[in-house]
Amino acid sequence: MIVDVRKKILIVGLGLLGGSYAKILKRFGFHVSAITKEQSSIDYAMKENIIDEGTTALDKRIIGDADLVIFALYPHVFVEWIEQNQGLLKSGALITDVTGVKGSIVYKIQDMLRSDVEFIAAHPMAGREVSGVENSTDKMFAGANYIVTPTDKNTAEAIGTCMELGRLLGFSNVVTLSPEEHDEMIGFLSQLTHCIAVTLMTCNDKEDMEKFTGDSFRDLTRIARINDLMWSELFVANKSALLQQMNLFIDKFNELKAMLEVEDIDGMREMMRRSTERRALFDKK
Amino acid sequence: MIVDVRKKILIVGLGLLGGSYAKILKRFGFHVSAITKEQSSIDYAMKENIIDEGTTALDKRIIGDADLVIFALYPHVFVEWIEQNQGLLKSGALITDVTGVKGSIVYKIQDMLRSDVEFIAAHPMAGREVSGVENSTDKMFAGANYIVTPTDKNTAEAIGTCMELGRLLGFSNVVTLSPEEHDEMIGFLSQLTHCIAVTLMTCNDKEDMEKFTGDSFRDLTRIARINDLMWSELFVANKSALLQQMNLFIDKFNELKAMLEVEDIDGMREMMRRSTERRALFDKK
Repeated sequence: MIVDVRKKILIVGLGLLGGSYAKILKRFGFHVSAITKEQSSIDYAMKENIIDEGTTALDKRIIGDADLVIFALYPHVFVEWIEQNQGLLKSGALITDVTGVKGSIVYKIQDMLRSDVEFIAAHPMAGREVSGVENSTDKMFAGANYIVTPTDKNTAEAIGTCMELGRLLGFSNVVTLSPEEHDEMIGFLSQLTHCIAVTLMTCNDKEDMEKFTGDSFRDLTRIARINDLMWSELFVANKSALLQQMNLFIDKFNELKAMLEVEDIDGMREMMRRSTERRALFDKK
Repeated sequence: MIVDVRKKILIVGLGLLGGSYAKILKRFGFHVSAITKEQSSIDYAMKENIIDEGTTALDKRIIGDADLVIFALYPHVFVEWIEQNQGLLKSGALITDVTGVKGSIVYKIQDMLRSDVEFIAAHPMAGREVSGVENSTDKMFAGANYIVTPTDKNTAEAIGTCMELGRLLGFSNVVTLSPEEHDEMIGFLSQLTHCIAVTLMTCNDKEDMEKFTGDSFRDLTRIARINDLMWSELFVANKSALLQQMNLFIDKFNELKAMLEVEDIDGMREMMRRSTERRALFDKK
């Protein structure tokens, strides 16, 4: 479906991600509309020719016209939108999302959704430390992963369309994972790292530490500057997978601490060698 | 003393740091000699005109000629060198070091040292992920901190000379701390961060994670590629300060985990806001 540029795409939530999607898709020739909270976002996007039309209202025509609807909202706002407004969607429409957690969202949406509309979930693994449509860019996705998380309820056609969307957007790596695999991966690679950064940043309030800081500490706390509203919601939405990763981390950290206590140099060196070896896998290719 | 370029400087341990020191000091016009383990390091340094003379032997003339001796060795090697060879030092010589831990080294050296030689300790807070004199550079210290850690045994003159050395080397920030303040600071900013990186890198061995990794995880594990010989020694040499920092971290991490378990969104948001606020202090100025 997606390759047919006569189809209409609606983006709900015109922020950094939604805006970047719009910018790229409109350039391919799709008709792109947007519904978002702030009129200033619509004004900016119209002025910059990022969208064809947009509104802050629940415009029945715009919603009813869309063949593909992309939701770029906070998880609970997305769920509420579907609960309240799914009646406005066109019969046969395909909907997708950008939500960073899957297990707690995908099944809930699919279970409540009309049978003539299909939801195929996706997570574009890209972000910046700035937000808003004003910071959107068509260069955001090179080198990044686009994860599609199908369930038994999805058709092969919808999965294919969603993967094609990821490739059109310029993602370097477009793959599928189950919602559970996705959540474990994201719990480890993204959420655990944010937990660590926030903890490191708040565990020692001694004054003047910043005068002596070097690159190591700066690297480990770059993401300690964090959107508290979004991340607290994402943590709770992925609670069980994240708690599991936090426990793995605590157990290993306590192992290291126990080795230091007894000055087990050989044990520490072995752990450091494994760390060095494993880190090589994660270099940028 | 140091401003008098007729004085002779000896560097013991011609690696990345020692080589960078030599390169800079020789350009100022000092006579720079080196004693190190590998003949290839001496050969390289002579060819590149980084030193005036050098040897892998315990050369009595070179050691006895030096007015300032800079030890760039592993902590235990430094202590052993002084134990075994301090008789060769010139009367009135000043010695300093680059050791990354202080409390467990400074008092030990000062207590055993001849009364006609003074040891003033310093920690140049700079490093790279490469090693060896071949990677030495005269641009390594811009933006970095040089910490002098005097004790009651040090003279004002030696402290002044050591601070002047730091400025000559190009460090942006030259300050003094007590050995204990230094060790707490380094335990938090440097050693704890390495403990965290190594733990994160080894706590989950699930395959294929690297396919999905993003910048957050890469940033937090950059220093997980680690020199196991050096860091295990540094950890043990700063054991009590590091254990204290590890405990602060674990306590805070467990607080966050407890909040997630009961879905205390307000508590998590408050912690994230403090994290965001405090991180701003640590930005590069």
